[in-house]
Amino acid sequence: MSKIVMKFGGTSVADLERIRNVAKLVKREVSRGNQVAVVVSAMAGETNKLIGWCNEIAKAPGVNVPAIPDAREYDSVIASGEQVTAGLLAIALLAVEVKSRSWLGWQVPIKTTAIHGSARIIDIVPDEMNACLAQGEVAVVAGFQGVAPGNRVSTLGRGGSDTSAVALAAALKADICDIYTDVDGVYTTDPRITSRAHRLEKVAYEEMLEMASLGAKVLQTRSVEMAMVHRVPVRVLSTFAPENGGTLVCDEEDIVEKNPVTGIAYTRDEAKITLLRVPDQPGVAAAIFGPLADAGVNVDMIVQNISEDGRRTDLTFTVPRAELDRALEAVRKAAPQIGYKDLISDAKVAKVSIIGIGMRAHPGVAQTMFKTLAEKGINIQVISTSEIKVSVLIPEDYVELAVRALHSAYDLDAA
Amino acid sequence: MSKIVMKFGGTSVADLERIRNVAKLVKREVSRGNQVAVVVSAMAGETNKLIGWCNEIAKAPGVNVPAIPDAREYDSVIASGEQVTAGLLAIALLAVEVKSRSWLGWQVPIKTTAIHGSARIIDIVPDEMNACLAQGEVAVVAGFQGVAPGNRVSTLGRGGSDTSAVALAAALKADICDIYTDVDGVYTTDPRITSRAHRLEKVAYEEMLEMASLGAKVLQTRSVEMAMVHRVPVRVLSTFAPENGGTLVCDEEDIVEKNPVTGIAYTRDEAKITLLRVPDQPGVAAAIFGPLADAGVNVDMIVQNISEDGRRTDLTFTVPRAELDRALEAVRKAAPQIGYKDLISDAKVAKVSIIGIGMRAHPGVAQTMFKTLAEKGINIQVISTSEIKVSVLIPEDYVELAVRALHSAYDLDAA
Repeated sequence: MSKIVMKFGGTSVADLERIRNVAKLVKREVSRGNQVAVVVSAMAGETNKLIGWCNEIAKAPGVNVPAIPDAREYDSVIASGEQVTAGLLAIALLAVEVKSRSWLGWQVPIKTTAIHGSARIIDIVPDEMNACLAQGEVAVVAGFQGVAPGNRVSTLGRGGSDTSAVALAAALKADICDIYTDVDGVYTTDPRITSRAHRLEKVAYEEMLEMASLGAKVLQTRSVEMAMVHRVPVRVLSTFAPENGGTLVCDEEDIVEKNPVTGIAYTRDEAKITLLRVPDQPGVAAAIFGPLADAGVNVDMIVQNISEDGRRTDLTFTVPRAELDRALEAVRKAAPQIGYKDLISDAKVAKVSIIGIGMRAHPGVAQTMFKTLAEKGINIQVISTSEIKVSVLIPEDYVELAVRALHSAYDLDAA
Repeated sequence: MSKIVMKFGGTSVADLERIRNVAKLVKREVSRGNQVAVVVSAMAGETNKLIGWCNEIAKAPGVNVPAIPDAREYDSVIASGEQVTAGLLAIALLAVEVKSRSWLGWQVPIKTTAIHGSARIIDIVPDEMNACLAQGEVAVVAGFQGVAPGNRVSTLGRGGSDTSAVALAAALKADICDIYTDVDGVYTTDPRITSRAHRLEKVAYEEMLEMASLGAKVLQTRSVEMAMVHRVPVRVLSTFAPENGGTLVCDEEDIVEKNPVTGIAYTRDEAKITLLRVPDQPGVAAAIFGPLADAGVNVDMIVQNISEDGRRTDLTFTVPRAELDRALEAVRKAAPQIGYKDLISDAKVAKVSIIGIGMRAHPGVAQTMFKTLAEKGINIQVISTSEIKVSVLIPEDYVELAVRALHSAYDLDAA
């Protein structure tokens, strides 16, 4: 007998028929003798509808100027979406004769910080739920929500139901957290780019973290961090084809055969800014990145060339494409303090990354990447590396070509 | 400075524009220096949508047989409707610079019994809310819901938001409970039947109770009972024309001029059953009404004729028209025990009532009713009376005629 947490996203519970299908999957786990807690998102589209209402009503009457709704009220309104799904799934389970009840964030309770809209889970008190699970009752938990100090409803931010599920699995000391979604696992790269991409049986937490934050939108980054910290095995499965087996996100030690590279990730939403002839002296980085931080711009890769004359150098960095205008404005405002000669930007760039924990033990992995791209005539604009990742910035037009070439170069192509 | 509770029903908060209008009405009370708690229903249509989902998903898969959803889950799902409105109104109030926060049933808390779907309020703990009101913050309370033992969400049944509002007013010791709805008060009779109907300035709790239970659908009966017990003055006002003034539902002592008859109520949803030649002996009433009670039939008026020979008599009673078939079946099953000779029923009957606390002090009020109906050639089939009410059963076709004639006879016609 195992204790498992199953999580179903918005598309998996988009209508009553799909909720019935989820009930079937849950029943199967129960009939295998497992104790089951289920975490659900809102029905697809509901959260966006509620957010739209909140934003609309927050406007001052008679003027059509965007306004930010009070975060506590916003949370209380949008948390209702998961409340509905949780109740409906509990009813659907009872209809197929599975003992079940719903749990809202405040009922568990799932205690969070007071940062409404993107609260963090502080504590989950699992005693009452554990008692119910022990009696064979399925716990259907409203994802994405918790209770903040002062007994206010809080939400965890976009994709927060993944985090709810992993945190619950940790609190319940579950054997596994199964994340049911609309893809059947984590792939070596985006299957839309190459048909040779294949599903990974296992992926290490660290690798998944890099993949999640680099644009493979399977799991929310925070949920992977939490799984890693609490050592919760997470499995990504398809709601519509669970028999495919999915991908297990687990501890590095549980992966026997470690390839140098596990997967190729990419993200198109990049922009590059280069400051030409910046004074090469202490304090200049602060003069540039201070104003950017103040403007809420997330700087990613940074490269500074060697200065030829010891006095002036060029400095390049990347930002999310959506933040490019804001970034340029901040830099231009700070021009007197920075003292650059010229400013150029490029919104047509993309980032391609190779990821693999095996990299640590295999020298020359990066070299293969550079050689492969060079052979295809792709110019690398910026490079950044970590222990288990090498990322390069390239012109956006070459993304597919680069990903396919790297996929082959690292022997990831499916047989 | 007064402390007031304002309640807005589903049509008053049906969309964002109407919620903005409600915010305006609330702001007006706040700017008069009042402490304000607002109770809201779900947006019109939302509750029915959620109920539909619950009923649909409660069916066993593959069969289209109606099934009753688990009442606790049902409550948790449908309570989400008021949660959304409460949050949206709080945001709308903040947008017009009125300090405000929403309160869900469990947050107040509004403690109820565990009879999910039609729970009764046991206790409201107003301390925290009072502290907020004292600081000039408007409390926006989700109506219709509470928290049952075991920390489960409960609902109060159809129209329960009226009860929420009155109970809250009692707990807060509010000076008045204003019920905003789509009519501008309580009328002497249904204005669709006679244009001479006029709005009552005041009506006593006892009268309102009779009117509510007799088909004047302005206030939910339980809310009137609760107002009467706790002596909460309730005012019925139009959301869309509050300047009209509304009707105050209050203590009998607060009404100076007491007419013999205050209003004429009617209900068409009646059916009549007559058992002919029933044995006139002890125990026969129990033999008839026991099985009806077991079948869940609500018997209203009962008349037993004087028996001519001391052995057999005729017995007539009325039931809601929707329960007629069930009632007939129950009686036929019990035929051997009852021993009647024949059974006749009539679904084309209606009940017309005159109501007035002044009746107690004015003899001959009923006689005016009988005479008026006789003059119009309307046959009275059954009569039942209470201290402040006389009801008669008549053929349904004569309802409008009877109401108009009585309205004139009791000097209720507007000038």
